[in-house]
Amino acid sequence: MKIAVDAMGGDNAPQVIVEGIEQARDEWDNLEFVLYGDQEKIKKYLKNDTRISIVHTDEEILGTDEPVRAIRSKKNASMVLAAKSVKDGENDALFSLGNTGALLAAGIFIVGRIKQVDRPALMPTLPVTNSSLGVNILDVGANAEAKPSYLQQWAVMGSIYARDVKKIDKPRIALLNNGTEYDKGDTLHKDAYQLLKNTEGINFIGNVESNNILAGVADVIVTDGFTGNAALKATEGTATILLSELKDALLNNGIFTKMGAAIVSPSLKGLKKMFDTSQAGGAVLLGLKSPVIKAHGAADAKTVFYTVKQINDMLQNDTINKANKYFEKMSTEK
Amino acid sequence: MKIAVDAMGGDNAPQVIVEGIEQARDEWDNLEFVLYGDQEKIKKYLKNDTRISIVHTDEEILGTDEPVRAIRSKKNASMVLAAKSVKDGENDALFSLGNTGALLAAGIFIVGRIKQVDRPALMPTLPVTNSSLGVNILDVGANAEAKPSYLQQWAVMGSIYARDVKKIDKPRIALLNNGTEYDKGDTLHKDAYQLLKNTEGINFIGNVESNNILAGVADVIVTDGFTGNAALKATEGTATILLSELKDALLNNGIFTKMGAAIVSPSLKGLKKMFDTSQAGGAVLLGLKSPVIKAHGAADAKTVFYTVKQINDMLQNDTINKANKYFEKMSTEK
Repeated sequence: MKIAVDAMGGDNAPQVIVEGIEQARDEWDNLEFVLYGDQEKIKKYLKNDTRISIVHTDEEILGTDEPVRAIRSKKNASMVLAAKSVKDGENDALFSLGNTGALLAAGIFIVGRIKQVDRPALMPTLPVTNSSLGVNILDVGANAEAKPSYLQQWAVMGSIYARDVKKIDKPRIALLNNGTEYDKGDTLHKDAYQLLKNTEGINFIGNVESNNILAGVADVIVTDGFTGNAALKATEGTATILLSELKDALLNNGIFTKMGAAIVSPSLKGLKKMFDTSQAGGAVLLGLKSPVIKAHGAADAKTVFYTVKQINDMLQNDTINKANKYFEKMSTEK
Repeated sequence: MKIAVDAMGGDNAPQVIVEGIEQARDEWDNLEFVLYGDQEKIKKYLKNDTRISIVHTDEEILGTDEPVRAIRSKKNASMVLAAKSVKDGENDALFSLGNTGALLAAGIFIVGRIKQVDRPALMPTLPVTNSSLGVNILDVGANAEAKPSYLQQWAVMGSIYARDVKKIDKPRIALLNNGTEYDKGDTLHKDAYQLLKNTEGINFIGNVESNNILAGVADVIVTDGFTGNAALKATEGTATILLSELKDALLNNGIFTKMGAAIVSPSLKGLKKMFDTSQAGGAVLLGLKSPVIKAHGAADAKTVFYTVKQINDMLQNDTINKANKYFEKMSTEK
């Protein structure tokens, strides 16, 4: 199995990428890696090139680039070359820490979607209070508009993913809605509820409200991309602001408080750890012909390592092909 | 000015309501109050009935009641009688801590909406890091479906409210969207952006994403009720879970940590205070002929007091009539 890595994306590229990939290479001997990017910069950090090759390019997509335009005009950008190698069958998966919008565009326009999936969806993992497996939520913004049938497709793919990668036997699939009763929501969500309830092969448990996303009541939460984006960002924004205010309260309230802070600090690290989902890897762009994964721009080598584990799990379990077969069967039965 | 108070709504009714109303009565001598509810229970807490009268009823709407049905079938419920008194002009505003859905229904079906407003919106105040005035956000769930014109009406009413009650000269009005650029979002939000940009008399500052709701970048955030509901609940849910995990980390990690917790505890109270919006009062149902305000079911006497202040500010400034005149002028100019 060969993974195409955009070595130039993210805040600390290529260092954390090279370090994480080397750790992953040492862990899984079925994997090979092709790093796309500036050869000189990559080699500076690469200690051992066993099962790691480099395809040199000095073009790259910046975080500030307009996604679709960047993909079309920067033909030799590391992300674009990596995506093309996957489309051409040279590599089996695409991994980047770079511009999310550009990776979405590269995934959709270069790697290409599964025929039976109308719209690919972006699916990160969020932490939950009662399990280290976290909760997957999709779509969180690959699409601004949605139809009930999209949400159904996302539920099926999310369910297969949770079985293959999170090893959950019967993943609990929930619909993000503005109330728990079956008849809640706008037309889109009412219709999606009925469709999900009647979808074979998934364990649909009903509606969940966004105050319960982190409560661990579901394994996969399905939502339209607009609402999912709002809920995800509200969750992240609130956590960031609260933790920052907490830090401020502990460190800027005099020496006495600071002493107390030093005492409680180890326990607070446990709190921080609960909100650390690096072991879950990156956000998956589901609905494409090959695994395409985006890790956070600020990700460290450990997250890169776990994202490779995530990709390996998807490849070993043939996750995408399973979804493909499900949809083919579904369309034959129609 | 006379305020109709549903004395039976909320977790600690009628005690906190009577206490808060007595404090408010002592503070503002222009106000009279009519308490609707169980006379005996109310009298148990009422120390001084100056400018406070009671209309007895032993029927009440429960938190578990189905809202619209409850309003229609429980004709003598304290909330329904209070709403009718406002409709009939006996009282000038309606205040309840009870069932939110039922109060929405009572507001819309009994008090009635301003003719020019298509859909009333529910508007709470959320805390922000840089101002005690917080941020108002509407609609957070009175409507599951929205049109761009609704968002425009909500923006106008939110802006007038922020001027009258929060005393902000040129309130910053933002649109909740999935990106900051003008062309972000689905059709609804793209169209709403253009409409808001061209709305006279409001200070529209563009899009805001939900990770910035608590950051104090706007005074009023306008959103469709479905997304607003998701963003509000995600914010509340994350804050609740984080603070609960924080408490757990401090208190359940041995005696040493507990000692440290005792030391930092006063500073953490400051943190908790930042997230306390009780001085902002309750959530306003904007778009009705009279002020209708919902305070949290768990509200204490202090919140009841500040909600009366909020109602008084709306009444003194003729906030609703200003909105009415704006819309009449707008429709004449069309």
